[in-house]
Amino acid sequence: MDAASAVNHQHLVFEDGLALECGVTLARMVVAYQSYGTLNAAKSNAILICHALTGDQYVAETHPITGKRGWWDLVVGPGRPIDTDRFFVVCANVLGGCMGSTGPRSPRDGNPEEPWGTDFPPITIRDMVRAQKKLVDALGITRLFAVVGGSMGGMQVLEWAATYPEAVFAAVPIATAAYHSAQNIAFQEVGRQAIFADPDWEGGRYWASGKIPARGLGIARMAAHITYLSEQALTRKFGRRLQGGEGGLSMFGDIFEVESYLQHQGSTFVRRFDANSYLTITRAMDWFDLAADYDGDLSRAFASNPARFCLISFTSDWLFPTAASRAIVHALNHAAANVSFVEITSDKGHDAFLLEEPDFFRTLAGFLAGCAEHAGIGR
Amino acid sequence: MDAASAVNHQHLVFEDGLALECGVTLARMVVAYQSYGTLNAAKSNAILICHALTGDQYVAETHPITGKRGWWDLVVGPGRPIDTDRFFVVCANVLGGCMGSTGPRSPRDGNPEEPWGTDFPPITIRDMVRAQKKLVDALGITRLFAVVGGSMGGMQVLEWAATYPEAVFAAVPIATAAYHSAQNIAFQEVGRQAIFADPDWEGGRYWASGKIPARGLGIARMAAHITYLSEQALTRKFGRRLQGGEGGLSMFGDIFEVESYLQHQGSTFVRRFDANSYLTITRAMDWFDLAADYDGDLSRAFASNPARFCLISFTSDWLFPTAASRAIVHALNHAAANVSFVEITSDKGHDAFLLEEPDFFRTLAGFLAGCAEHAGIGR
Repeated sequence: MDAASAVNHQHLVFEDGLALECGVTLARMVVAYQSYGTLNAAKSNAILICHALTGDQYVAETHPITGKRGWWDLVVGPGRPIDTDRFFVVCANVLGGCMGSTGPRSPRDGNPEEPWGTDFPPITIRDMVRAQKKLVDALGITRLFAVVGGSMGGMQVLEWAATYPEAVFAAVPIATAAYHSAQNIAFQEVGRQAIFADPDWEGGRYWASGKIPARGLGIARMAAHITYLSEQALTRKFGRRLQGGEGGLSMFGDIFEVESYLQHQGSTFVRRFDANSYLTITRAMDWFDLAADYDGDLSRAFASNPARFCLISFTSDWLFPTAASRAIVHALNHAAANVSFVEITSDKGHDAFLLEEPDFFRTLAGFLAGCAEHAGIGR
Repeated sequence: MDAASAVNHQHLVFEDGLALECGVTLARMVVAYQSYGTLNAAKSNAILICHALTGDQYVAETHPITGKRGWWDLVVGPGRPIDTDRFFVVCANVLGGCMGSTGPRSPRDGNPEEPWGTDFPPITIRDMVRAQKKLVDALGITRLFAVVGGSMGGMQVLEWAATYPEAVFAAVPIATAAYHSAQNIAFQEVGRQAIFADPDWEGGRYWASGKIPARGLGIARMAAHITYLSEQALTRKFGRRLQGGEGGLSMFGDIFEVESYLQHQGSTFVRRFDANSYLTITRAMDWFDLAADYDGDLSRAFASNPARFCLISFTSDWLFPTAASRAIVHALNHAAANVSFVEITSDKGHDAFLLEEPDFFRTLAGFLAGCAEHAGIGR
């Protein structure tokens, strides 16, 4: 059993399962989640956080596998932009994930020796959101005060607002897009091919041998990681510095610091992430095209939408550039929705939403405070 | 024997070899090259073309392995921007390459059964240029009328001008940079890791089993290919179109057109390119940092340089962005060199220099015509 499977994640079991968009019905569904803060008596102060591709529910606490800080503990906590002294914060591991929610590593027919693996049905962003809706319902929350997420998390926020307009008071899609671009699909395809090419992938049945396709998954992570950073951020971090200072010309080994950094990113990632989950979730992102469900007219996805929207993008994010957020803002304007849009000046690239960015923090805190006042949520 | 080795490329043999920057001396060196047009009596009308990472000497004729058109036949030929009715055009396969010049596939000690493989010494851009200089000398050309190249070819142009200032009348570095950026190193490292991860690479000794690390090299090519295109070009070419029209959700196979295109790019590439050459040449690019050889002051590389320079960049090229060309222009200005700079508006990305771009063609033709007049080269 690998490290991830050995952790007992807090979860709810839905014995009625979930009918997926692909036509398959999961007979039984597990949703693993973490929460922070206290749900008020009116159940009106809940914020759902949607995580990104390689994120999980451990938003603001030590990660049970890596031992690292929560991935958004700069943003979520007492006195933080998402203030857990005021709000009840929930984050669920996405459907298809590998941190406790039903996914490719889950037992197929209740037999823990036989995971779904590559037979796990294809999952969409909407499937992820529908799974989260069951969790939110089970927690007795009729309307979320806010749904917040960056990158693939932002896709879920958009899907939440479109699919459950009455259940979302405020929506904060960050560094995201209403569809995955050809370039983004292409980068993800490189990663998938690297996994497929790894002999330890064994056609997706790697669990049978106890191996993991570590090299392939590591390469996928390396390629993706470059897209999360800006050229400036890479240059500032590494420039052209050589490993171990000056070195002669040689062909092998890590020569530039940026290389060993990326290899480290790849090798630590494979210890916590399941390759089949990576395939499942990247596919969900690729398929995401919210307008396609509304005859190609994104504004129709938000017709008569009562939510307050705040779109946030970052100047140096080339994976989900400002233009992608602006297209969503235009659609929301066209639908006469209540929308603010802030482009944060940052040279940190797509990863900026995970990093220390005071302007971003102020924007998020300010928007939520304003909405909380309208919603009548006390301090 | 693979397809590439079976071709008898036109070449010169230098029995005195070449002392490389790394300290190793190649005892014997072969430089394969093609030429177009006629060298005039004064030997004053020669243009050297420097090819990019995956290019070769077959600039303007059918490729002997792929059967495709020459990679720059839009640019080089009778009446083309580089007019072979007027100029004698030479292009050599780079040192370290796999199309006839000495490289990892060459016999190590004259034994064709034992190629250098991964023991081939590391090569630098300057080594490539010094090999070309021996070819140019052997052809009896004292001064090249022009040295022209894009991408890694542009790096060679810069190195030519810096190393042999008296041998270059005009220099045209296109879509290039004076050093390889951290981001570019990072992308190339992903490709190298994909090759290393392929079990058919066999530690670089794949020739012994007759295999080639096709999956790893194919993934390297896929990843690189994305960086050669702009987001707009990918969107225009593929958008989010699905393979074979509408399809249901499924996990495997090519789902989006962009995926099968990239896989095709990868699989055709491996038939003509040697994996160890790919490693050697990408490393040469990563090491390139012209200013480093001049105490970090790029302008010193061009002190008192008599050449006429024309720098050309493309607006949508994010691999070698305009800013990288502009930095070279600033250094040339600082050195009081004769320099023009043109940024071509294009949405085709880095690959624009290989494609139909009338403004680029006019710029190149105009610059060369002006220089030819100064050089007294008749029509």
